[in-house]
Amino acid sequence: MNPMIDETHDIARRSFIDSANDPDSDFPIQNLPFGVFSTSTGEARPGVAIGDQIFDLRAACRHGLLPKDIPQEALAYDSLNALFALGRIPLRNLRRALSALLSEADSGKPARQLASDLIVPMAESRLHRPTRVANYTDFYAGIYHARAAGALLTPENPLPANYRWVPIAYHGRASSVLVGQGTVRRPVGQKPPSHAGRPPDFGACERLDFELELGFYVTGGNTVGNRIAIQDAENHIVGFSLLNDWSARDVQRWEMFPLGPFLSKSFATSVSPWVVTADALAPFRVPAMERLNGDPKPLGYLHDADDQTAGGIDIDLKVFLSTSQMRSQGEGAVEILTSNARHLYWTPAQMVAHHTVNGCNLQPGDLIGTGTISGPRDEELSSMLELTAAGARPVTLPNGERRSFLADGDEITFKGCCRRQNFASIGFGSCTGMITEALPL
Amino acid sequence: MNPMIDETHDIARRSFIDSANDPDSDFPIQNLPFGVFSTSTGEARPGVAIGDQIFDLRAACRHGLLPKDIPQEALAYDSLNALFALGRIPLRNLRRALSALLSEADSGKPARQLASDLIVPMAESRLHRPTRVANYTDFYAGIYHARAAGALLTPENPLPANYRWVPIAYHGRASSVLVGQGTVRRPVGQKPPSHAGRPPDFGACERLDFELELGFYVTGGNTVGNRIAIQDAENHIVGFSLLNDWSARDVQRWEMFPLGPFLSKSFATSVSPWVVTADALAPFRVPAMERLNGDPKPLGYLHDADDQTAGGIDIDLKVFLSTSQMRSQGEGAVEILTSNARHLYWTPAQMVAHHTVNGCNLQPGDLIGTGTISGPRDEELSSMLELTAAGARPVTLPNGERRSFLADGDEITFKGCCRRQNFASIGFGSCTGMITEALPL
Repeated sequence: MNPMIDETHDIARRSFIDSANDPDSDFPIQNLPFGVFSTSTGEARPGVAIGDQIFDLRAACRHGLLPKDIPQEALAYDSLNALFALGRIPLRNLRRALSALLSEADSGKPARQLASDLIVPMAESRLHRPTRVANYTDFYAGIYHARAAGALLTPENPLPANYRWVPIAYHGRASSVLVGQGTVRRPVGQKPPSHAGRPPDFGACERLDFELELGFYVTGGNTVGNRIAIQDAENHIVGFSLLNDWSARDVQRWEMFPLGPFLSKSFATSVSPWVVTADALAPFRVPAMERLNGDPKPLGYLHDADDQTAGGIDIDLKVFLSTSQMRSQGEGAVEILTSNARHLYWTPAQMVAHHTVNGCNLQPGDLIGTGTISGPRDEELSSMLELTAAGARPVTLPNGERRSFLADGDEITFKGCCRRQNFASIGFGSCTGMITEALPL
Repeated sequence: MNPMIDETHDIARRSFIDSANDPDSDFPIQNLPFGVFSTSTGEARPGVAIGDQIFDLRAACRHGLLPKDIPQEALAYDSLNALFALGRIPLRNLRRALSALLSEADSGKPARQLASDLIVPMAESRLHRPTRVANYTDFYAGIYHARAAGALLTPENPLPANYRWVPIAYHGRASSVLVGQGTVRRPVGQKPPSHAGRPPDFGACERLDFELELGFYVTGGNTVGNRIAIQDAENHIVGFSLLNDWSARDVQRWEMFPLGPFLSKSFATSVSPWVVTADALAPFRVPAMERLNGDPKPLGYLHDADDQTAGGIDIDLKVFLSTSQMRSQGEGAVEILTSNARHLYWTPAQMVAHHTVNGCNLQPGDLIGTGTISGPRDEELSSMLELTAAGARPVTLPNGERRSFLADGDEITFKGCCRRQNFASIGFGSCTGMITEALPL
């Protein structure tokens, strides 16, 4: 499925919901991301962000406003799994229908008539994790991250020999994928011995970190023993969100040989509440990262002719830090790094094709992380590990505070935005987490 | 919760279902494992194995035969998750009630009166995966396996420096956990380059293997940010099954640095259909594996005073192989190795305590694998990798066939049994899978 630019992307299209027409809104009518929300009076249900409001999909379906291929049953849950199971074509049709409904100029049309039933202020809602994540996989597709982190964690082998052949990944913990709001508790665990031959240290993580990633959600999927061909892979990706792969670096270093990261990651993974559809992102597709001299051509099952035009996505990513001291002094969060989704060595389609080449089954609502998206420049290093050279070069904040890793009370916020001339900007909202102190032993 | 021997373990107790009284039955009335079954006329639902029959829990509940703390809702699904969510005490009470119901000598009692409604021949049923596995974790707790496999896969570091401190584990793929019946398709993938500097090979796995493990299922669980103390860990384990961690060794060797196994495992994991409860296994608890000179004492959060009496479980494990040629010649499967669950360096309780020490949440129905359970002797090496020294020492079968790894048509069957004088033997049924040829490229 090639990215397709159509009338839903028209910058001239405006919504009857005024806040969606603010050029600074993350959620103009050209976006229409899916999420799950609840209000004080209603249970958690699927919705669509529009400006500073949420359009209630379940209520809209009950009123007969949605296309016929969207059954009420697909909206009956507190997660988007059943909706995502419908597949990309019905979801594309739904997005088109929503674009028409929410742009109605005529005040006699149903979405405006029924507005009090259908539209809820986001500020009065609680946002939830978009899907019941049954399977979460985290890739390692950011080559600048792999090089930088590799040089620090495994200096003898910074970029593994397999890196340019294999889209490396590991299974993550699904149960602790959380919506990126509220707090994350500092984990406790075994840490490397202070001297060789001594017992490991044990206690609260002292090298708590974030990793800036994108996540994407599966629609459709495959059955065990079958695979998804690279040419078909985009049909199985419904959309993207921001993803924070919180990491306990000291725990990671000690535990990860030989089977990979486990407790150093499984305490929490945060995702932003809104799933920005692949359809909304169509205008922002760019060529996949160029293979340089010496980089091998991907193997056949990973070769996609479309990569040269649309394998990548141009998404500006930013990370902000707010400390307790900053908040108590009334200071706002400070931007600590910026990056772009262009810096992914492997495309989302390649990740899907690789994930299923062995017959592993993907299921609707599965979450796939891209891996940390660092860029080539110093200000594009997308974790504290990289930014501070594992603590050797602490970051100094404007108020004079210094950070090697995250302190209790630190709040990390990710933001993402797509911009292109003659197109409305598409935002991702935010993915936030504030570190709270470790549970006593 | 200490293992408790009570009247349900009494060897004198007999069932009115004759086949359960056969001393060779895996499922005497002292066992009563949980599973999910369906018949040609009914949907998949929870049941209990008794001799060669299945006792229908949903029907029994409808007839008011089960304890009051087992609500109909807990039996309303095609998985045991909701039943397991009730926790160990209600499940222990349920087992006691079933033991009484199924032992009724008096033909006027309800379970016999209603037998035609409640009891179905296993041979006429289809068995399903016991739980909807939302999370699957695989440990590496068999120290003889770690040593033997480590010597072959990472000879420079056969037993990692962290092994005797950290119960090493990785997240497995939940979606491809299958009931151990039927076929497993040979996976395709990238394999190590034939010469350094050459591209990797790509195609059907040539080193397909099994790994003999136990799996256990979570009841209860914990919320994110909290942990399960070692003293409480057994309360969160409902029971055990056989688990085959199918492994593509060539894919594994190429992909696993630095983040661990991924596609080499995610094509399939098989579990036996019946969950043998921890309560049924009480008479077979034995001291945990002895720590030898030089082995450190476990850290506090992994220290359990009960380990010295009941940390281990004495389960005889056997692996059988049947090839196409053997079947076409009318020969039965041949036993290729035998081991015992005593050979686990870390106890299931230690795995639960470690898994949650960082605040990672376990959920009812989660599956935890122990890792391959090899023993110290040659015939106790519990994978083809170990048994054949990575193919250097092929196994010769009685009919003259040789195997380094698994061939298409090979069927692997695991069996497990607990035996102790003056107690009824408790069997695990079987976990089976036959290899079929790879999906064409």
